[in-house]
Amino acid sequence: MMIIMKSHATPQQVEHVIEHVRAVGLAVHLSQGIEATIIGAIGETHNLPTELFETLEGVDMVQRITQPYKLASRQFHPENSVFPLAGSAIGGEEIAIMAGPCSVESRSQIIETAHAVKEAGASALRGGVFKPRTSPYAFQGLGEEGLEYLAEAREQTGLPIVVEIMSQVQLDVMVKYVDVLQVGARNMQNFNLLRAIGETKTSVLLKRGLSATIEELLMSAEYILSGGNKQVMLCERGIRTFETATRNTTDINAIPVLKNLTHLPIILDPSHATGHADYVAAIARAGIAAGADGLIVEVHMDPAHAVSDGKQSLKPEAFAKMVKQVGQIAQIMDRRLASVRFPVKQ
Amino acid sequence: MMIIMKSHATPQQVEHVIEHVRAVGLAVHLSQGIEATIIGAIGETHNLPTELFETLEGVDMVQRITQPYKLASRQFHPENSVFPLAGSAIGGEEIAIMAGPCSVESRSQIIETAHAVKEAGASALRGGVFKPRTSPYAFQGLGEEGLEYLAEAREQTGLPIVVEIMSQVQLDVMVKYVDVLQVGARNMQNFNLLRAIGETKTSVLLKRGLSATIEELLMSAEYILSGGNKQVMLCERGIRTFETATRNTTDINAIPVLKNLTHLPIILDPSHATGHADYVAAIARAGIAAGADGLIVEVHMDPAHAVSDGKQSLKPEAFAKMVKQVGQIAQIMDRRLASVRFPVKQ
Amino acid sequence: MMIIMKSHATPQQVEHVIEHVRAVGLAVHLSQGIEATIIGAIGETHNLPTELFETLEGVDMVQRITQPYKLASRQFHPENSVFPLAGSAIGGEEIAIMAGPCSVESRSQIIETAHAVKEAGASALRGGVFKPRTSPYAFQGLGEEGLEYLAEAREQTGLPIVVEIMSQVQLDVMVKYVDVLQVGARNMQNFNLLRAIGETKTSVLLKRGLSATIEELLMSAEYILSGGNKQVMLCERGIRTFETATRNTTDINAIPVLKNLTHLPIILDPSHATGHADYVAAIARAGIAAGADGLIVEVHMDPAHAVSDGKQSLKPEAFAKMVKQVGQIAQIMDRRLASVRFPVKQ
Amino acid sequence: MMIIMKSHATPQQVEHVIEHVRAVGLAVHLSQGIEATIIGAIGETHNLPTELFETLEGVDMVQRITQPYKLASRQFHPENSVFPLAGSAIGGEEIAIMAGPCSVESRSQIIETAHAVKEAGASALRGGVFKPRTSPYAFQGLGEEGLEYLAEAREQTGLPIVVEIMSQVQLDVMVKYVDVLQVGARNMQNFNLLRAIGETKTSVLLKRGLSATIEELLMSAEYILSGGNKQVMLCERGIRTFETATRNTTDINAIPVLKNLTHLPIILDPSHATGHADYVAAIARAGIAAGADGLIVEVHMDPAHAVSDGKQSLKPEAFAKMVKQVGQIAQIMDRRLASVRFPVKQ
Repeated sequence: MMIIMKSHATPQQVEHVIEHVRAVGLAVHLSQGIEATIIGAIGETHNLPTELFETLEGVDMVQRITQPYKLASRQFHPENSVFPLAGSAIGGEEIAIMAGPCSVESRSQIIETAHAVKEAGASALRGGVFKPRTSPYAFQGLGEEGLEYLAEAREQTGLPIVVEIMSQVQLDVMVKYVDVLQVGARNMQNFNLLRAIGETKTSVLLKRGLSATIEELLMSAEYILSGGNKQVMLCERGIRTFETATRNTTDINAIPVLKNLTHLPIILDPSHATGHADYVAAIARAGIAAGADGLIVEVHMDPAHAVSDGKQSLKPEAFAKMVKQVGQIAQIMDRRLASVRFPVKQ
Repeated sequence: MMIIMKSHATPQQVEHVIEHVRAVGLAVHLSQGIEATIIGAIGETHNLPTELFETLEGVDMVQRITQPYKLASRQFHPENSVFPLAGSAIGGEEIAIMAGPCSVESRSQIIETAHAVKEAGASALRGGVFKPRTSPYAFQGLGEEGLEYLAEAREQTGLPIVVEIMSQVQLDVMVKYVDVLQVGARNMQNFNLLRAIGETKTSVLLKRGLSATIEELLMSAEYILSGGNKQVMLCERGIRTFETATRNTTDINAIPVLKNLTHLPIILDPSHATGHADYVAAIARAGIAAGADGLIVEVHMDPAHAVSDGKQSLKPEAFAKMVKQVGQIAQIMDRRLASVRFPVKQ
Repeated sequence: MMIIMKSHATPQQVEHVIEHVRAVGLAVHLSQGIEATIIGAIGETHNLPTELFETLEGVDMVQRITQPYKLASRQFHPENSVFPLAGSAIGGEEIAIMAGPCSVESRSQIIETAHAVKEAGASALRGGVFKPRTSPYAFQGLGEEGLEYLAEAREQTGLPIVVEIMSQVQLDVMVKYVDVLQVGARNMQNFNLLRAIGETKTSVLLKRGLSATIEELLMSAEYILSGGNKQVMLCERGIRTFETATRNTTDINAIPVLKNLTHLPIILDPSHATGHADYVAAIARAGIAAGADGLIVEVHMDPAHAVSDGKQSLKPEAFAKMVKQVGQIAQIMDRRLASVRFPVKQ
Repeated sequence: MMIIMKSHATPQQVEHVIEHVRAVGLAVHLSQGIEATIIGAIGETHNLPTELFETLEGVDMVQRITQPYKLASRQFHPENSVFPLAGSAIGGEEIAIMAGPCSVESRSQIIETAHAVKEAGASALRGGVFKPRTSPYAFQGLGEEGLEYLAEAREQTGLPIVVEIMSQVQLDVMVKYVDVLQVGARNMQNFNLLRAIGETKTSVLLKRGLSATIEELLMSAEYILSGGNKQVMLCERGIRTFETATRNTTDINAIPVLKNLTHLPIILDPSHATGHADYVAAIARAGIAAGADGLIVEVHMDPAHAVSDGKQSLKPEAFAKMVKQVGQIAQIMDRRLASVRFPVKQ
């Protein structure tokens, strides 16, 4: 960390900053230039906020040289993190495709969908049972009943299940059922929830907040990793910008940037990132071409009658076509689609 | 709600939409124009999502005519909501000024600060005990110990206390101590937390999310109001934009817009909205001039040594000067600063 | 266009609006519902601003049903626009790849680069001679001298040349030399320039402004098209958002959205859209996978010594590798890279 | 400027950077720390882009210590710039209020409006004659005829006139008529236009682009100042963000930030910054309370029939009320409204 003093800072102010740097256990490297005095603060700085020094008198600015996260950083862990999911290896050569409805609506709906997405090439089943809805008057999900239906779908198809958790209070029941805990965009900085998940052994799909920076996403991953849970996937799902032609703006740049900064697998959600079924396949292809390790896609047997997100849900046939195209692009990228090797209950 | 059909929609598609509208209990008003057929859906539509109809075949777009919230709407409740806080009346003629440190750091710190801000003209004391920090390595707050210190500061000064709640799990202890539950920007759409708070009788300060629209803020208020808790203040605290010269961009427009749309009191947080102590007073004045009902301001006895947010904290003297200017602007707006009428323990 | 009256609008206000609608030559379709009276304004509405009616008393809102542009719209022209460039057909099956340095720096530089990018598979040569620089102290380009060098590079390689125009004043000289007039992001709404270009016969590459919506981009294209110049390509080059990890945020969604809304060819500029050479190939692949009709890429023989945009420029070898990958993705999309069929001067 | 080398940079790379620094005429201050080697580049760096060094091998990042503009900087010119306009002194104790219609529509309209705004307390008259319209089909302004009407209005009222210039081509005719050349948001980075204006002696009102940063605004001012024209006012007119409740988001923070960074006068345009007549007065008050040196406000005798911007135009009575409130706030800020002392032709 470099602390740049104002041009008119007094020797006393410089001295005072130096004392502060030493007081938090860092070494000092002093450089007295003509334009400015610069105090290098050397040591374990990733866990120190820059404001520790920014508020001291005479300080002009503080520039971080190393990243503010460590466990999530590729500097610290150069190899890709690869971890198992239903027999496939997330983060390695295989491309994971998680698919299913926004909400679990009924037993028959989720079981029928599970078979349909498996047939089309999915390697995991998604479905929401606790729904974060903007309006208090909207459908809020089936709760534990929905988890039982998902578990039954898993038994029948072998597809591992990915389900969103909204609150610490749901953690015990969720861990009992699900293969992947999804943390939604609105909870990306629900730090109590992140800490609690960090203490479990369940895989996590951490979605980027609507207006979270890439660095903040990595800091939130750090919360989970620092609790001991190493199986974290990051998910780009579109950010909020001025453009209203689509529900969100897919930050496709985030894919190569994240692959560069972190060893964790990167998943793209083209459904939320566009908000329109018509654009999902194009963005799914783009994501894999940009280097993503997987996709999470909303699929519904009858989007026009979905209780939520019907507008952005693919029908199984459209999904199957998308999977085929994505598989071809995966090949160019020297990768292949994951296949399910989970035991299926007969 | 108006459902605009595509120009080439078939009579069957129109009929199918009409059936849907009736199925959810709404009446139909059909208008067959030359450019488009429009189906008016009439009745209690504020609690229905537009996607209910957007996904039906032949539908071009759905336009809401009435607002998607009701209890928070000024249409539904034309008079300002005014509710008591420590003897003053929030939302009426009086301007509330809540002030204090970002974090409660020690007993002596909060008690000293409480006296200082009261002296300077504050009508409430703020202080965090559970801190949402971007980094897992940063100071996370004193917890219940901090609440006890705040309660003691209240006893000595008569200032009601405003404290941020981060999780449902903290609700019982918080309700026991605090006068105003603050919901932070990152939790504005933590719907489980909002529901739980809606069932209490404690006043709420609901902060706008970094990238939440004004409509989403009102929908979140609706969650609390629909639970029965009517004492909700809304807080503009800056939004995230492309501009990096300040920590956030104060959406000053939100103040007159919110005063127009809702009867709830509107508070401005110039500390987070700017992120720099040098700009706090200018934005505080602007907020009151634009029609805000109060301010929440970070004040620290020694900002350079604050454990958090020192950069944006005012020293008591600067705060006192700001209060004076704000009081003069309040007069022009035909208002006055609230004064504390809480009993002080001798 | 639908004009929705306020619920308490008087019959006189409704009558006044109806007169206004008729006065601008539109027919009226009146629909008196229970929630609201809606006045349909029928006829040629694409060239009328909604504010024409929004400001009338008693009007709640005005909703456009048809698009505010016509010549650029796919509704009006369902087939893709395909137009010739150096023997290849832009907007058809072929993928155009325009490449070259940000600035023409010298005769030898541009000639050497032209050969290098042609060798690597480019179908056009880009190079700036009038540079829009944020700082008045930065290099401003070689001017007409640079155009002569570009023309010589074209003679030697057969590559058509793409050059940015910054002002009407430059139009005569530009038209004399260039094959494609590039309108930069900062000039997307320089309407005088657009009108002037609309009166030429030279092909245009119209770049999206940093914070222009997709609709505004199409309206700017309409300016050129309405002047009679039909050879307009649109270029996504990244938008400005809160994310600072990359120079801009590639709005990859814009590619399928634009392909849906317009018949004009869509080009992606992965160099400006990312700002980092390391991310250019990933985003170029993503663009073609999402359906773009071409790419414009900055290539420099020695990026470290480029006078501008070195950070985002590819070396010829990296560019050649990118072209190869893009060609493979083009095949999956049932397309192929354009090849140059321009006569080369011996 | 500080050049921070990568942790694994070789001595050869460090040496190569040092040579580069010296080659552009700067001195070198080398600091070899443990975390990183830092090369200080000392001298006239404000006119050098950071990319000059960012692209060299081994460089991690380049941090500017001094600002990239000089003539616009308060560091360089600590006192407020105060310059005369119709007898009043812009940038000093007086608050300038410029008012008038978006477009000059007819002789009688602008003359009637000029008298009305003067009566209400305006100190300058605004009116557009060349209109930048998003749609090629919209009204484009009266051109030189409009300038003649404005000049006549000035003769009758003594109000100086503020008119937008859209292109270099208009410069000669504009300079002949107007007192203040307004550069619109869409032309803030039309560098050819800025250079041309820099060579005149006419005062300038430079509006911030929709998505321009504060630093970019100052860089654009630098273009004009470096040409020799020192009479530049900066204008905040709202930025583009995700919020759609208002036309733009007033960046009220920009006012104290700009007052801190530059000596140039700062004007607020509450009409474009909100887009709704209902919100103009609140934001005008906020702007003066935040420290702005003046306002530019759209006023129309009959907003419902304005050819442009009717929705955000105040009627003269509402404007008069706004001026009164603003005058009261000016007093609190130890300022007063400017009055016109221009000779009026009898």
